[in-house]
Order: sequence, then structure tokens, then C-alpha cells
Amino acid sequence: MTDSRADLGRAIEDIRRHVPHRTYPTLADANAAVVQRMIESEPWLVDVVLAQDVIPQFAGRKLILHAGPPLDWSEMTNPARGAVFGALMYEGWAEDEAAARRQADAGDIEFLPCHDVNAVGPMGGITSPTMAVFVLENRPFGNRAYCTINEGTGRVMRFGYYGPDVIERQRWMRDTLRPVLGAGVRAAGGINLKRIAAEALAMGDEFHQRNVAASAIFLRELAPWLSRVCHDADQLTSVFSFIAQTPQFFLNLAMAYGKATVDAARQIRAGSVVTTMARNGVQFGIRLSGTGDRWFTGPVNTARGVYFSGFTAEDGNPDIGDSTVTETIGWGGIAQAASPGVCKIVGVPSLADAIRSTEAMRTISIAEHPDFVVPTLDWRGVPIGIDATRVVELEVLPMIHTGIAHKEPGRGQIGSGTVHPPMQCFTQAVHAYAAQLGELALRA
Amino acid sequence: MTDSRADLGRAIEDIRRHVPHRTYPTLADANAAVVQRMIESEPWLVDVVLAQDVIPQFAGRKLILHAGPPLDWSEMTNPARGAVFGALMYEGWAEDEAAARRQADAGDIEFLPCHDVNAVGPMGGITSPTMAVFVLENRPFGNRAYCTINEGTGRVMRFGYYGPDVIERQRWMRDTLRPVLGAGVRAAGGINLKRIAAEALAMGDEFHQRNVAASAIFLRELAPWLSRVCHDADQLTSVFSFIAQTPQFFLNLAMAYGKATVDAARQIRAGSVVTTMARNGVQFGIRLSGTGDRWFTGPVNTARGVYFSGFTAEDGNPDIGDSTVTETIGWGGIAQAASPGVCKIVGVPSLADAIRSTEAMRTISIAEHPDFVVPTLDWRGVPIGIDATRVVELEVLPMIHTGIAHKEPGRGQIGSGTVHPPMQCFTQAVHAYAAQLGELALRA
Repeated sequence: MTDSRADLGRAIEDIRRHVPHRTYPTLADANAAVVQRMIESEPWLVDVVLAQDVIPQFAGRKLILHAGPPLDWSEMTNPARGAVFGALMYEGWAEDEAAARRQADAGDIEFLPCHDVNAVGPMGGITSPTMAVFVLENRPFGNRAYCTINEGTGRVMRFGYYGPDVIERQRWMRDTLRPVLGAGVRAAGGINLKRIAAEALAMGDEFHQRNVAASAIFLRELAPWLSRVCHDADQLTSVFSFIAQTPQFFLNLAMAYGKATVDAARQIRAGSVVTTMARNGVQFGIRLSGTGDRWFTGPVNTARGVYFSGFTAEDGNPDIGDSTVTETIGWGGIAQAASPGVCKIVGVPSLADAIRSTEAMRTISIAEHPDFVVPTLDWRGVPIGIDATRVVELEVLPMIHTGIAHKEPGRGQIGSGTVHPPMQCFTQAVHAYAAQLGELALRA
Repeated sequence: MTDSRADLGRAIEDIRRHVPHRTYPTLADANAAVVQRMIESEPWLVDVVLAQDVIPQFAGRKLILHAGPPLDWSEMTNPARGAVFGALMYEGWAEDEAAARRQADAGDIEFLPCHDVNAVGPMGGITSPTMAVFVLENRPFGNRAYCTINEGTGRVMRFGYYGPDVIERQRWMRDTLRPVLGAGVRAAGGINLKRIAAEALAMGDEFHQRNVAASAIFLRELAPWLSRVCHDADQLTSVFSFIAQTPQFFLNLAMAYGKATVDAARQIRAGSVVTTMARNGVQFGIRLSGTGDRWFTGPVNTARGVYFSGFTAEDGNPDIGDSTVTETIGWGGIAQAASPGVCKIVGVPSLADAIRSTEAMRTISIAEHPDFVVPTLDWRGVPIGIDATRVVELEVLPMIHTGIAHKEPGRGQIGSGTVHPPMQCFTQAVHAYAAQLGELALRA
């Protein structure tokens, strides 16, 4: 893309002078309405089931979901490919890596973005039909969202591992964790994740690279329900141990929370609010409220960050995963000031730097979330609702916190850092929305 | 007390020029050694038992423990008196309030400070022989400390309630909570409370008026052990529910942590480090490392703070409870900057004010705790080890966070706030330590 600033300025002017929606006469009205839906969203965890139980697209085909905007098997980077091998073996579709590779190379496997089926997935985002998924219900709006369960640390499929231990863990999640959690959640009448997130944000979580407080609160809220429904001491103990040892357990709930939230907002088809940010390891893709399902993509960046001992930026896979849905709703890098603990992990030198960063995010955001208030900002709310026109105009890109995968399959996480989307996603989106509004105006 | 500044200056000079201990040739050496013991302390929760199982002083007498420095029944304020009525009924020593009052008025009940028997107690601190208590072991030093279990919110004995519901809860704590927690803790081989506290401090707890993160982490750590040892679903569920609904659950563990810590430090009989701060509703008492078991007291202040709707400072009981043991080891008001959540509750307007307050506390403290680091201070440690000579010299009093009890019995908590010890505790202590060192020098 080689947009001149003048062209962009005209596109933004065009967007601002058109009536974006019959109910919302101005861009500001439309954006406010979209963000109000984000703010009013209240996702509850209501069940834990097999992916195929809630995602009808799995029926009758060999379908695998992946993170980010659409891409082919041939384009996938190694962390996602490794996870695909694991998923094919877990589903019993392939006996070993060689067979899995042959099937994928032969085009026997279909791929769809998680985002197309009300789902999101971390890192590779690889989701197959009999994996366990959380079911979230956004109660004020009635829409649902799904995400797999966090596998813990170390050798995990989301970073491209596909050894027998990884597949065995998936089976345990399907056969023990899913039914126990599902029964507890149903007995509780659902778990209000908004309340948990508000409490945990005040404890330094930002729900992308830090979820340790929310995970503990989730366990606190669910424990009495689990002991009520599960009378097998070994199973119950294994579930408690797993959650207790998984500080990022809440991440996948936070991601499904984000998906349930943006999908409610996306029901208003107007405005320049960023309603999706996701990466597939090759492309970073965004979508706007006004342009609906259309993706605007650019080559992903590789995170700058803090590498685990023995690794360097050379080893890092380009940025990957749907977890940027957290930034899309004002968490993660957008809420950096809320989380001094994350600053350490992703390489931000001081709380003062983090506060400046979140202040910059406020300049490209529509509102502040009244329920997600930040102690280190003297209880101001997190900025929420990124306005693509402001990103382009101010040349301020959203701040993203991210885990860094090794670029080879099966090598896992090698660090954490910060990264920005490529600017061209936003310039393309602004031009496309301006053009769309112009065409609509001509037809009217 | 009407100490002239000149007299005080001479006393401080005397303290500084004497050799305080044969192992520690200077005051700075002695103070550093005392505080080093505080820093190296590592209290583990190792059991939950009846008070009489671990406190031999209960044997063969009608003894009740209370908070703060020694006082008689006739001096006790109403929150403590109400709790005494409850305790006498709970123990079966009195049938009703009238009988309890008669016994206490007749001198049939003996009273001792918790601090005299390796224990601490919140608010009234009323502890009777068959109440359930936590047993902490300070592993590097081998000493133990005890504290009752937090009763939750609302109508609770520590604020002077003594109705049948309060007594029934004590029975449940004795008959269900104690054995379940005790078995879980023993199966776990003890729970390292230092690790939990370090994690929770970074989540905004200061362990006096805010313990919500530590309570959730405690539950997270213990849950797999509880499900392993308790196979009665109703009991297990009641224990999980109770802890989940008690955001101050960890307070009593933090207090016992503080007691185990100061008692290890008190084994070095030298220096001007404050090793006890406690209030009985009438007197605020402190003790110094160099003066051992001797109390230095002054009339307690009443907290300035945020009152629950319908109450004013008029209704507040003077400051009461052993919970200032948290400030004595660098938590609570000393660590105000760590806890923006507490600032709201106790009436501190902004995080900047809290940071200034903790910086002031650094000027009267010996060291910074390397393991208790504060995200909002860019990971500097909490100030630890209050030096009575600096308090007097700089005229900077320790900051204390406190709950406010209604002054009538059985009315409960009516607010939270900040309070200072009376200066005269410190001036008395400094004069007494100077005199003691002078006498020793004369005899040498």
C-alpha cells in the first residue's frame, strides 16, 4: 500500500460527512452505539461441550478451525501446522505426523477461521470437532461464543506441539475436565465473567498475557459448584490441580468473552469501530463495524519482547492467534497501565511508561469502559472501541501484548512481547468504508 | 506525657552511643539483625486445631484471650465485651448474656493478651479454648503462632455480636471447617504463606483491609488437597462456599504470619525496632526489640475514614485489635501504595497520595523487603521494620489501615479508615530503652 496522506484525509472526510445508518445519523452516533453494545455486553460461561455440539459447520466433513483471517494450509506457519498434525491424530483422522501431513498436503482437510463460526482460538487457534470448548452466552444480546480450554504451560498444542502427551491431555480435557466443569457451570446457573474480569482487572490482570488473578477468582467462584456435582475425588482433585497450575486458564475465557462482545457489537452494521483483530501467522486482519465480514489484512509483525533464556528474535514466529480479541475490547495492550505485572513480562520498563501507553490508546478509542476501571489510573476505565479513522489520522497503532511462539513446530513458547498491527490494515479499511458509504449515497 | 524535644534528642543519642548487644556492636547492626529475621521469616500454615490444643495456658481455668496490651474486664470497650459474652456462651460457661456479664463482673473469668501466648486476634481478639485456630510454623526459626479463623462479614463475634447465629458459626468452624482445613493442610505438607502473600501483594492486597486476592490464591492452592482428603460433598461444598464468600479470609492468616515473624525477630533482644503494635480499644501498645516484653502504651485514637451509610465518627469505637501486626511487618498502612483498592475503602484520595504515604513510611523503616515488591512502586519492596528512634526524631507516625467497629456491642463494623498510634508510645519506649542501655553500661 502506498496511500498518500491526502487520499487518506479525503477518505476520512468522506466517512465523516455521510450518514452511516438510518438509525444513527452521524459517524459519532454510529460509533457510540457500537461501543455501547461492547460496554453493555455481559458474557456468562454457561456450558462446556464438544466443539461439534455447538458449531454445526463441523458436521459431515474433515474441518479444522484456525486463528486469524482465512488462509490455506500451504500458507500456514509451523506452530499452526504442528497443531494441525496433533488435531488430526487426536481426531483419529491420521495415525501419525506423516499421514497427517499427506492429508493436509492433498487437500483432504478443510480449514475455516474460528471467527467465521462464533469462535476464537489462541496462537494457531487449531480447533477440531471433538475438542472441549467453553460456551459463553452474552446475556443482554443473546449471542454465543466458543473457545477451546487453555492447556496450561510447557508442551501444548497451541504452540505447535503434537506429541502423545499433548494428545493425551486433550483426551483428559474432553473426558474429565469438560463434564466436570460443564456440570458445575450448569448447576451454578452460569458464571458471570464480567464480574470476575472487573475484579481481576483491579488485581493487575489485562487478560492477554496475565490472567493469574482471574483464574484464581474463577476457581473460587466455581469450587463450591464443582464439589456439589462431582463426587469422584480423583476427578475433582485433577480438575482443581489443573486449574490451580494454569495461570493463563482464564485467557481462553477472556477470548470467548471478547468474541461474544464484538459479535454483539457487529450486529450494528455502521461506523469505523474495529470489531476484529486477529492474526494467522502470515496476515494480521481487522474488520470494522461498518464493513461487516470483510477482512483488511497486512503482513504480521514479529513481537519485540523478552525472550526466554537461550532464544532470540531470530527464533520467533511471526505474530499469530485470535487473542488480540482482548485488545479489541480494551484489554491486553490497550490496558497496559492496569497490569504492572505484564510490563515486566513484555519488556515495558516502568509503570509510568505503561500509563503513557494507555493514555495514547485513549486517543484512538471511542469510550472508557465504566465497569473495567483501573486502580493505577485512579479508577478511570479502560479505553474501549478502537476507531480506525483515528488510528489513521493520528498514526497511533493499537498496542498488543503477545506470547511469542518458536517458528519451528513443536518448540513452544519462547517469550512474550509487544507488537503492533500493520498500518495498512487500517488504511485499507478506511478507504473501503469511505468507498462503501459513497456507493450507498449514490444509490440513495 | 510532656517530653521536651531536647530530652528526647538526648535519649536517642544515648541509644546510639551504647553497645546494644555483645553480637551487634552498634544500634544499626542490632536493628539490621532484627529486621533480617523479619525478612527471612517464612511462616507456613501447618494445621488447624482447637486453641486449647496449642495454647497450654488455657488448661484448668476460665481464660479468655483479648487483643492489645493487657487490660481488665472493667476497662474493655463494648465490641470486646460483646465478644466475651459470645465466647462464654459458646464455651457453655454461661447460659445467656446476663449470666456471662455476672461472671465477668464477679471476676470469675481470667483475661490475657493474645500476644502473651504466641497468638493474635482481630478487633476484640476474643479467643476461648475450643475455638478453632490456625497453626503457623515459621520454618527458618521454628517458632509458632496462632490466630482464630475469619468469620466472614456481617454479624461476627470480632465486632461484638453474640447472637445464636454467631455462636452456631463458631461451632461449624470447630466441627467442620477445622477438621477439613486441618486435614487438607497436613496432606499438603503445609502451605507456604510467604509465596501466597508475595503473589497477592502484586495484586493489590495489603493484608489488613484488603485480602481478597490472597484469599482466592489460598483457596486455589488448597482446593486440590481439600478434595483429596474430604469425601463428604456437603462438608467440602460448605468449606469452599465459606472461603469463597469471605474476602478477608486471609486476614487472620496474615496476622498469624505477622506474629510468627515478629516473635522470631524478638528473639534478638536489642535495637529500637518496633516488634509489636496492638490495641485493646483503650490503649495502643508497642514493644521494641531492645526492651523485650515491656509494653509502652498511650490512649488509642479513633480512625478517620469512610463510614458505611447511616454512620458517623460519633458511632465509632476507639481503635481495637491485634491486626496492626500487619503494619509491624511492612503491610497494611505501611504498604498503602501497593493497594489502590484499599485507598478507596479507607479514604485516601489517589494513588499518588498512597505512594507519598509509603515513601514517608520508608523514612521511619530500617529496610525494604526483597520478597514483597510493589508493582506501583516499580517493584521496590515494602518498607519493613519501624525504628522507634526515627519515629520520634522525624515525628512521622506509622500509617495504619483499620476497620471501625460500632461503639455499642453487637452493632458490628461501620466503616474503614486510617489511624495513627499515639506518639507517646514511641517517646516512652525511646526513653525506656535509653535508660535500660545506660543501666547496663553502668553495670558493665
